[in-house]
Amino acid sequence: MSSSTEFPTDETPAPTVPRGRRPGKADTRAEILAAADVAFAEDGYAEASLRGIAHRAGVDPALVHHYFDGKAALFVEVMGLPRDFREIRDEVDRAPGSRGSALVDRFLRYWDEEPREGRASSFHSFVQAVCSSDQAADSFKQFLVDRVWSQVARDPDDPEWLVRRSLIGSQLVGLGFQRYVLRLEPLVSAEPAEVARWVGPTIDRYMEGPLDTAPTTPDGSRRAGRPRRRVRRR
Amino acid sequence: MSSSTEFPTDETPAPTVPRGRRPGKADTRAEILAAADVAFAEDGYAEASLRGIAHRAGVDPALVHHYFDGKAALFVEVMGLPRDFREIRDEVDRAPGSRGSALVDRFLRYWDEEPREGRASSFHSFVQAVCSSDQAADSFKQFLVDRVWSQVARDPDDPEWLVRRSLIGSQLVGLGFQRYVLRLEPLVSAEPAEVARWVGPTIDRYMEGPLDTAPTTPDGSRRAGRPRRRVRRR
Repeated sequence: MSSSTEFPTDETPAPTVPRGRRPGKADTRAEILAAADVAFAEDGYAEASLRGIAHRAGVDPALVHHYFDGKAALFVEVMGLPRDFREIRDEVDRAPGSRGSALVDRFLRYWDEEPREGRASSFHSFVQAVCSSDQAADSFKQFLVDRVWSQVARDPDDPEWLVRRSLIGSQLVGLGFQRYVLRLEPLVSAEPAEVARWVGPTIDRYMEGPLDTAPTTPDGSRRAGRPRRRVRRR
Repeated sequence: MSSSTEFPTDETPAPTVPRGRRPGKADTRAEILAAADVAFAEDGYAEASLRGIAHRAGVDPALVHHYFDGKAALFVEVMGLPRDFREIRDEVDRAPGSRGSALVDRFLRYWDEEPREGRASSFHSFVQAVCSSDQAADSFKQFLVDRVWSQVARDPDDPEWLVRRSLIGSQLVGLGFQRYVLRLEPLVSAEPAEVARWVGPTIDRYMEGPLDTAPTTPDGSRRAGRPRRRVRRR
């Protein structure tokens, strides 16, 4: 397999003088990403190794570690997820109508995009990886905490926000599952804007509507051995 | 591997006179199910074969076909999903409060149950199978159509119901994904009744509340080549 037709290596032109920590070898990085993409798709997340990916890319394994902070980070990178969620938050905030509808529309349009050539960046691949490997699930959770929730929340430690974000996530991931994995009609054929109108009010309520957060039982008891989570009433 | 300690075979006692189409060999059926469960867990849905399952169970492959209508049906059977959803519908209808909350509570309590010994009947296994095999996804869709939606809908062909059922499904499967696959707090630790209060209003609206079902664009055009789905306004 040669990806050098797509990603010309930077070994052909005369090497430039090293410029310190950031050598600017964008092509090498792209080569590694392309190799990782094939490795994850062919071997599965659990079986793919950084050494094997380096071998595929024709680079020293140390270079993989130079560019990526481990296999989990590389996986998230290969998925092609957005890096800056503040942009998306601002976009959703600026939407003329319901913020919930704007978020649903944005979410579906993102995953509707055809996977880039040679890239397993579809929702299906994502779910498959997360299902088949605890490490992939953990790295995706870390991605959510570090790059998504910390950027979009006004107060990331607000206990009520913890509930709200998980409910928002549950509705979005469920939509993705019906549309891209089970491929159930009418959710497969519906336009993102249409689904957004159906589901927008749900997200709006999860974002800022009233949540019934009274204790579970009259005496407020919970399952033993689990931390008790109280949520502020609005 | 011997499952005969759990499921005594019916070959030990003197064979009874054959009674026609239903020989009443519940033990043989259980043996096949136990073998299928191990096969799906060890080999994955795609790799598991009816012949191999028959071999594991120590029965003639024809017997597997006698009891189960193909691999997909066997898979659904192994998942241990409920067979009669009218009961669940009636239960939800009789619930004193919100029907949506009753459904969420029922859904989570069902999947919260510990997987039966030696059975991969968890939500995680289900998602894994559906993700890794188009055939498993198709058989689950068939299960939904034949055994769930046809039993719970007042009018299964109502085009608006097609939208409503897929939205209800999206929220439930998303909750399951957060709770059992990604294992995201606070959805992991929350009691079913608590999640039911948060999510109940969503399901209530999907069941019978107003859905914005105006056409996607001012001229009502849709994506080319896809069937146009109009939904009645309420």
